[in-house]
Amino acid sequence: MLVSALLTSVGINSGLCVLFFTLYSILRKQPSNYEVYIPRLLDPEGKSKRRSSFNLERLIPSTGWVKRAWKLSEEDLLSTSGLDAVVFMRIITFSLKVFLFAGVIGIFVLLPVNCSGDQLQDINFSDLSNNSLDVFTISNLSNGSKRLWAHFSAVYLVTAFVCYLLYYEYKYITAKRIDFFHSAKPQPHQFTILVRSIPVSAGSSVRESVERFFLEYHPSTYLSHMVVHRSSKLQSLIKDAKKLYKRLTRLQSESNRQKYRHVGLFRQKVDLEDHYGKKLENIEENMRLERSDVSLAAEEVRAAFVSFKSRYGAAVAFHMQQSTNPTEWVTELAPEPHDVYWPFFSSTFMKRWLSKIVVVVACILLTILFLIPVLVVQGLTNLNQLEVWFPFLKSILTITFISQVVTGYLPSLILQMFLKIVPPIMEFLSSIQGYICHSDIQKSACNKVLWFTIWNIFFATVFSGSILYQVSIFLDPKNIPAKLGVAVPAQASFFIAYVVTSGWTSTSSELFRIIPLVWSLIKKPFSCCSDEEFEVPSIPYHRDIPRILFFGLLGITYFFLAPLILPFLLVYLCLAYIIYRNQFINVYAPKFETAGKFWPIVHNSMIFSLVLMQAIAFGIFTLKKLSLAATLVFPLPILTLLFNEYCRKRFLPNFIAYPAEVLIKRDREDGHDPNMAEFYENLVTAYQDPALLPIEFSSNPDSLRSPLISAAQVLH
Amino acid sequence: MLVSALLTSVGINSGLCVLFFTLYSILRKQPSNYEVYIPRLLDPEGKSKRRSSFNLERLIPSTGWVKRAWKLSEEDLLSTSGLDAVVFMRIITFSLKVFLFAGVIGIFVLLPVNCSGDQLQDINFSDLSNNSLDVFTISNLSNGSKRLWAHFSAVYLVTAFVCYLLYYEYKYITAKRIDFFHSAKPQPHQFTILVRSIPVSAGSSVRESVERFFLEYHPSTYLSHMVVHRSSKLQSLIKDAKKLYKRLTRLQSESNRQKYRHVGLFRQKVDLEDHYGKKLENIEENMRLERSDVSLAAEEVRAAFVSFKSRYGAAVAFHMQQSTNPTEWVTELAPEPHDVYWPFFSSTFMKRWLSKIVVVVACILLTILFLIPVLVVQGLTNLNQLEVWFPFLKSILTITFISQVVTGYLPSLILQMFLKIVPPIMEFLSSIQGYICHSDIQKSACNKVLWFTIWNIFFATVFSGSILYQVSIFLDPKNIPAKLGVAVPAQASFFIAYVVTSGWTSTSSELFRIIPLVWSLIKKPFSCCSDEEFEVPSIPYHRDIPRILFFGLLGITYFFLAPLILPFLLVYLCLAYIIYRNQFINVYAPKFETAGKFWPIVHNSMIFSLVLMQAIAFGIFTLKKLSLAATLVFPLPILTLLFNEYCRKRFLPNFIAYPAEVLIKRDREDGHDPNMAEFYENLVTAYQDPALLPIEFSSNPDSLRSPLISAAQVLH
Repeated sequence: MLVSALLTSVGINSGLCVLFFTLYSILRKQPSNYEVYIPRLLDPEGKSKRRSSFNLERLIPSTGWVKRAWKLSEEDLLSTSGLDAVVFMRIITFSLKVFLFAGVIGIFVLLPVNCSGDQLQDINFSDLSNNSLDVFTISNLSNGSKRLWAHFSAVYLVTAFVCYLLYYEYKYITAKRIDFFHSAKPQPHQFTILVRSIPVSAGSSVRESVERFFLEYHPSTYLSHMVVHRSSKLQSLIKDAKKLYKRLTRLQSESNRQKYRHVGLFRQKVDLEDHYGKKLENIEENMRLERSDVSLAAEEVRAAFVSFKSRYGAAVAFHMQQSTNPTEWVTELAPEPHDVYWPFFSSTFMKRWLSKIVVVVACILLTILFLIPVLVVQGLTNLNQLEVWFPFLKSILTITFISQVVTGYLPSLILQMFLKIVPPIMEFLSSIQGYICHSDIQKSACNKVLWFTIWNIFFATVFSGSILYQVSIFLDPKNIPAKLGVAVPAQASFFIAYVVTSGWTSTSSELFRIIPLVWSLIKKPFSCCSDEEFEVPSIPYHRDIPRILFFGLLGITYFFLAPLILPFLLVYLCLAYIIYRNQFINVYAPKFETAGKFWPIVHNSMIFSLVLMQAIAFGIFTLKKLSLAATLVFPLPILTLLFNEYCRKRFLPNFIAYPAEVLIKRDREDGHDPNMAEFYENLVTAYQDPALLPIEFSSNPDSLRSPLISAAQVLH
Repeated sequence: MLVSALLTSVGINSGLCVLFFTLYSILRKQPSNYEVYIPRLLDPEGKSKRRSSFNLERLIPSTGWVKRAWKLSEEDLLSTSGLDAVVFMRIITFSLKVFLFAGVIGIFVLLPVNCSGDQLQDINFSDLSNNSLDVFTISNLSNGSKRLWAHFSAVYLVTAFVCYLLYYEYKYITAKRIDFFHSAKPQPHQFTILVRSIPVSAGSSVRESVERFFLEYHPSTYLSHMVVHRSSKLQSLIKDAKKLYKRLTRLQSESNRQKYRHVGLFRQKVDLEDHYGKKLENIEENMRLERSDVSLAAEEVRAAFVSFKSRYGAAVAFHMQQSTNPTEWVTELAPEPHDVYWPFFSSTFMKRWLSKIVVVVACILLTILFLIPVLVVQGLTNLNQLEVWFPFLKSILTITFISQVVTGYLPSLILQMFLKIVPPIMEFLSSIQGYICHSDIQKSACNKVLWFTIWNIFFATVFSGSILYQVSIFLDPKNIPAKLGVAVPAQASFFIAYVVTSGWTSTSSELFRIIPLVWSLIKKPFSCCSDEEFEVPSIPYHRDIPRILFFGLLGITYFFLAPLILPFLLVYLCLAYIIYRNQFINVYAPKFETAGKFWPIVHNSMIFSLVLMQAIAFGIFTLKKLSLAATLVFPLPILTLLFNEYCRKRFLPNFIAYPAEVLIKRDREDGHDPNMAEFYENLVTAYQDPALLPIEFSSNPDSLRSPLISAAQVLH
């Protein structure tokens, strides 16, 4: 790829970004778009702010939101969006620090060194844009060149810097997590564990079994329990009822408005209303029957939420193996009550086991099938090959601009489109894997998407240009560094373009919220009373964290091969920094609070990036016949992995459960709290299955117009 | 190898076995050998039984001991030698069951099938001993032969049978373990944990730190603690004192006897006595000084044994992460007081870390260096190659008997000699690795020896005949089954011979106790009063368990390739069954009690053997062009590993710590025990470092002749 092709891509994307930014600053001021751009700022009724009068200001782009996002302090973010948002923003600041450091080294030391090489061709200073991008990469240095020691030092320096930062961040977030725990009010999930595989003796119910066991073995700390019921049928009934109820209210409000217009139509509407009303009553009757069925012992699942009088009591019950048979009375920490993923509990142990295997197989299949679009995309960067495949394109591709768009922009755009569908698929796969709460599902999906991206974008791209047909080479572990050393630098220009297109566009479209915007535009004409369904969205961590981490991986692996990637990466990170802060203020509300449990994923990904980078460095130095450097790089991955091992020991346990010290201190503080009696009262029913709560739509005529708030809350 | 060579080997070894058995039944009746053959039956003074009068019976071989060993019940074994001995014997009975089953299939189905093949040559029934052993192996079947389905079925059947037995045994031993815990008296290690990395604030001691922490966070269960002191200097002083003291007592007893003979010599002796006595007093003075030094806070190690009022309290403290920093207040279960490996505690965290790395490197080096003797041994089985290397041997090797000895007997004898030195080396390596007790050291050494044996005997032998020079092939995982399929059957005759020589000889020499016998014969003339040093030996699990498991691996991998191995294996196991039972009755006393913690090693080794066997089967069926069978074998390792995963979940946790249920029940039983007050009193000092106990040799003149029993116990 020529510099000019890259410049084309940069031009297009800068234009797009400016366009998005301008449109955003205008559109967000239109009251009709408040739901899309500032849902968090709307008060629950959702209309108070809308009626602002029209003025010219609304049509002039402004930058006030940038200033607001910039000024947001970490404390404010913590108080409004929770620790997870803080951790998310710290991923970005962490990457910024790393790539600022690497950028200084890369641009001021490595780039001149690379340009000074003469392996490929001399750099053409008079017409910079006609140089191949490869001139700026390590490939331009000749074999055995002493200048490679600059790269060697850079590898060591950056590794040390990243490890230092990783340690510092892990420590910081651990401290934040403990502080957060100390400052949080008593919450049900701190006092509760989930017990599964409860053995039941003949003639006794799960409820009795749980009661007996915990009174016997945890008499001083046991408080109460809530057995889980098989409620999937009830859940589907409620869903039906909800749909019908919505239709009915819409009909009613429409008919109220139209009453004075079309009498004939009105009659029909009333009939329909009657019809739906009866149907709804019917369903509700079924729900009542089903609910009483479900409450019976026969429908009990062998799982229960068991609450304790103290956090320490719950933690002890969680950490200890309870029964002689470790597959019985299996304990795990309870999620927040509103975070529980209820559908899961209907499945039996065997179902969970099977679905886990199905998920693994599905992930593998998805990974393999995904190679097809990646292959096609790779074809685009090798124009010659494309001309061989599709001879009729030859004439078009000779036009410089088109060929530049095709090589510089199209490939990564197509890749990005395909990648868009991966996070929802992975989330779905995780949801059937047996996790008990939404946060675990997102965490697992986050991991899946991350590794999927690394394997399918990084490795597939790197090896398709040269040896995709030799994928089996991966079963030959000792040659991996050498193969990487050949293949990775060859794809430098593709990944530089990828950062520009995929990175820049994705952040600005994140700001612009294209899909929600389009969706709201489509929806508006069809629904007049959609306000009631309006819900503040939550950030899809499993989509955004892997994306940032993948750019981190690209930056770390390419910083010494092609330092030119770094400025583009820094622009991306700066954009992401402002935009995500803005989104946390205006758009996303936290749906759950894991208190920073996403950080270990970030840490692992960074360690993997480092080791991969070191393997590539080893391969490169071997190829460039600088065997002393290759030998000296060898201890680096070992040291990095030892560092990782230390961090696992030092920090990871705190991300799984809280230590005794912290729990006991917190319990003692509660001892003086007069509100605890009330808290315990609520705790007893905190983990009630929402499907089992009494909800009535039709019985009370008033409720048809404004249903009980509790019901509405439950249904969301 | 020809059948005749194997028969030679069988002949030699049978002869050796009979010789050993006969000699044993005579020698064990000689009072002078009681220490070697029946140390357990001697009463503490060690002389009461010795003075039996001479009679002819003592010179006639007898088989009474076989009957006694046979009749020993598991309960008796449990009560006299502990659960570890029971588990050890169950390894043998388990293997017997497996190979009886496999033997029936192998001999009555697979052997005739193999012989009926015609790939190599027709079997020569008229002169059986001139057939190559390969005729009896799977190599004799032609490609694509339908008869291979017999082998396929055998692989499935034996896998299923082994898995069933493994499950049953794991369950049985878990139950035994829990029963054993229930029936055992209260023991200090059940109430105690070891806490390491204790943080100490400035101006405070470790003792105060521990006290404060546990009174703060475990006020209701904490009982007492015992801080560990840096006592290595003291330990070496005590060692010196012990040596001197022994020399002194010997001198005294000699001079007492010789008093009336040589006056001149006597004077010299008395001078020497004085000299040693003074030296001893000197050392004791040093010991006293050192002891008072060691007791100071300055010599405190940041580790302490912390005892609790209940088993449950100790378990809770063990399972919970105590501090916000998980690398501080690190807890582990305490070993039995007499099992503690004190030298270890002197080392700091960094030392332990470094020594761990050193041990890993040493193990790798040992493994590589060991290939040299294995290579040489392999040369012996390929006579032609040997003749190429050493042309002068040509004339000798043409003699049939010599060539048969060389191919059939020498190789495995040499291997065995080299293998003899491995367990002590591995035990030494484990001891510097940072384990806190002898049982852990043996367990770790057991694992090391096992994997060393598998890699160095099995894989080195298998691949040296064909592709040792391609050892790097192991980095090419997908070709391993194919390579195994070629190489493993080729070494069948070597391993059959190995079972006969190494197996049979090792068990009978275990019975005969050659080394202790020779040692006692050498020692006798030089020491007249060695009785006081007499110590009942304990069984070296790290030597014997890997050996049995390795024969298990050979049996499982070769049963369908060369069923001829099975009868020899069964003979070996029967010998081992009788001999080890006899040794448990007469020789070995338990030194520690892990309550069956060796079993997971056995389980893992068996699972590995199964998967290896399945990989070989896959390779063989592919090679023999029976691709349908190869495909159908493929799910087998997956199923086996899933089974293993299930067993890990189902049984392993019980081998790490006892569950809450069991602990609480046991604690409640103690509630009614009037002896507990006394037990708690003893518990406080149970983990006192023996070096810090007061020992005096010289101060009391009487003690020179019969030292305080406490001192003697301590020194052993």
